[in-house]
Amino acid sequence: MKPQLTVHGTAPAPAAFPARRIVTLPGRFAMRLGGELQDVQVAYESWGRLNAAKDNVLLIFTGLSPSAHAASSGEDPTPGWWEEMLGPDKSINTDRFHVICVNSLGSCFGSTGPSSLDPRSGKSFGPGFPTLTLEDVATASHGLLKSLGIPRVRCVLGPSMGGMSALAYALLFPGEVDVLVSLSSATHSEPFAIAVRSLQRELIRSDGTWAGGHYSSGEGPKEGMRLARKLGMISYRSAREWAERFGRERANAGGEPFGAEFEVENYLESRAQAFVGAFDANSYLYLSRAMDLFDVAEHGGGLDKALKRLKLQQALVVGVETDILFPLHQQHELAEALTRAGVVTQYLPLPSKQGHDSFLVDMERFRPAVGEFLAQL
Amino acid sequence: MKPQLTVHGTAPAPAAFPARRIVTLPGRFAMRLGGELQDVQVAYESWGRLNAAKDNVLLIFTGLSPSAHAASSGEDPTPGWWEEMLGPDKSINTDRFHVICVNSLGSCFGSTGPSSLDPRSGKSFGPGFPTLTLEDVATASHGLLKSLGIPRVRCVLGPSMGGMSALAYALLFPGEVDVLVSLSSATHSEPFAIAVRSLQRELIRSDGTWAGGHYSSGEGPKEGMRLARKLGMISYRSAREWAERFGRERANAGGEPFGAEFEVENYLESRAQAFVGAFDANSYLYLSRAMDLFDVAEHGGGLDKALKRLKLQQALVVGVETDILFPLHQQHELAEALTRAGVVTQYLPLPSKQGHDSFLVDMERFRPAVGEFLAQL
Repeated sequence: MKPQLTVHGTAPAPAAFPARRIVTLPGRFAMRLGGELQDVQVAYESWGRLNAAKDNVLLIFTGLSPSAHAASSGEDPTPGWWEEMLGPDKSINTDRFHVICVNSLGSCFGSTGPSSLDPRSGKSFGPGFPTLTLEDVATASHGLLKSLGIPRVRCVLGPSMGGMSALAYALLFPGEVDVLVSLSSATHSEPFAIAVRSLQRELIRSDGTWAGGHYSSGEGPKEGMRLARKLGMISYRSAREWAERFGRERANAGGEPFGAEFEVENYLESRAQAFVGAFDANSYLYLSRAMDLFDVAEHGGGLDKALKRLKLQQALVVGVETDILFPLHQQHELAEALTRAGVVTQYLPLPSKQGHDSFLVDMERFRPAVGEFLAQL
Repeated sequence: MKPQLTVHGTAPAPAAFPARRIVTLPGRFAMRLGGELQDVQVAYESWGRLNAAKDNVLLIFTGLSPSAHAASSGEDPTPGWWEEMLGPDKSINTDRFHVICVNSLGSCFGSTGPSSLDPRSGKSFGPGFPTLTLEDVATASHGLLKSLGIPRVRCVLGPSMGGMSALAYALLFPGEVDVLVSLSSATHSEPFAIAVRSLQRELIRSDGTWAGGHYSSGEGPKEGMRLARKLGMISYRSAREWAERFGRERANAGGEPFGAEFEVENYLESRAQAFVGAFDANSYLYLSRAMDLFDVAEHGGGLDKALKRLKLQQALVVGVETDILFPLHQQHELAEALTRAGVVTQYLPLPSKQGHDSFLVDMERFRPAVGEFLAQL
């Protein structure tokens, strides 16, 4: 696989993502657990300028569902999913860093995934897409950087699943990463998180319109996705936040038997409705399972041996007290293990009340946490 | 409503519950939120002897799904759901107390519920059963005790939903209860627990065979119940227990796409399968919603005013650090409020690792917690 830049066609990028670029990695792409893809595409957006020494790159991996549109830019003024975090003079300072946010392999926002056309059949891969791991996500992103002529990254950074992908990147390409920033992530998935995600996947699979993954583009398990998103929201936020925010506020009871009695139920419904149709169900299944499968310890016979392969200068590990999906003890575990591996590591447990989602919403805490660390690099 | 003992028919009790007794409360039974039932039946089991003064009664309310068969007896040697807790010389000592465990109104183990025959139609109530509250559960149980000629109870005790029903009993019949024991329960449901239960109910309702509640006896939403039970298990246990118990133990991968990869997924499946068919779906919906609706504060304009109505001598409030459904701060809140209301209260936070279910499984901690308190009465 010799990566090569081939910005797609001469047609304008889709209006939905005018700042998005897509690179093709020509030839065979071998997946970690077997199977292969051809001419993998990797979508990304970028901000700030690559300096002459090419040593100011900050690579962002996303959580499961966001696109590469982390922030607005001249080409795309619509706010990104991390608008408050990323930009000129912001915590992830695009005056200083050339920031690249990559759409994960397997996702549905421009990178090759289950909804992409399988060149062998001329149809979507669907469930014929090979088993995906976060190491594959990292490898595809590495191919992207090579195709852009970027030899190394100053910092690889990711929240949630993105932190796992960032760890995978640092493990697979030691010596090409100086600094790791892990936000509300972990070295592996614990059984509680696996159980939650397994049930989410089962809710999608139980929807008859999933049809074993063989649904038509634009169709698919809407009801399953809606229910899975509700379970997601229950695991992403925190009991404390909801107690303060909703308490026992009552809903305007509708006519439906056993319908919403409390405002928190309406909140879940509105959040779930907004998600349905915005993300491909098969992509969800593949990426969700990839999180379960991830385990740093597989890279060399145990956590400590694996992390010894890293050639990082520094790391920042941030977590949140109220996170039940990536609990604080997993942040502590990662920070301790990095320290044992000889990486100068800052561990920052935050008292945010918004649970796992805090990195998206508790900007008062996450902005300085990330900003002050990056500023001292 | 003048309660009257009418042990049902002359036919033997069902073989499944040879120790079960069923009492009918003749006439109209007005439900708290509207609607009424006729000739309500209340099922119970009992252990130990009622003393001459009739002042040694200990009344147990159950969690959502157990029957009144809390322990074995001469009539029914099969182990009950609290076998290790209840019996001669055990923590709930049947040599000393006349113990009565009641099957909640609305349940499906002998007490009147949605699967009972509606005398008006000759068919099951189904979704025509009136809205159920835990105050109704308490009132029906009070009717049972009156019909048995028991004027007051020494102690009312309940875990989980049973603790709420016990509180409702003490609130509705002040002066008829001396002592309250609340295990992993609360004065009200917080939005996190409401969200979990709301989604469980939606999983049941989303199963087409629920048919708006109009399924035939023995039929019903098996798939919805299975999925709801999985979500239940995720909320009943704890991440710490599972991390120790399962870690990342792999499952024997089956052929199903996105099937179980990890042992924790097989565990959830086996627990869910065991539940399907063992509990009526409509009963589940009614009792689950009753937990959401419960709020001590509705009894007199706020929590403190409500608890001032209690005429308890003592209370024990036990909770568990790893409980995410009835979290420890809710136990503390209840204990503090009882104390402010003038009740001599012991608050016992336990470091059990099995989450909400600890009262069923961490017998090493719960037996002495309950036993030592009751022994000093």
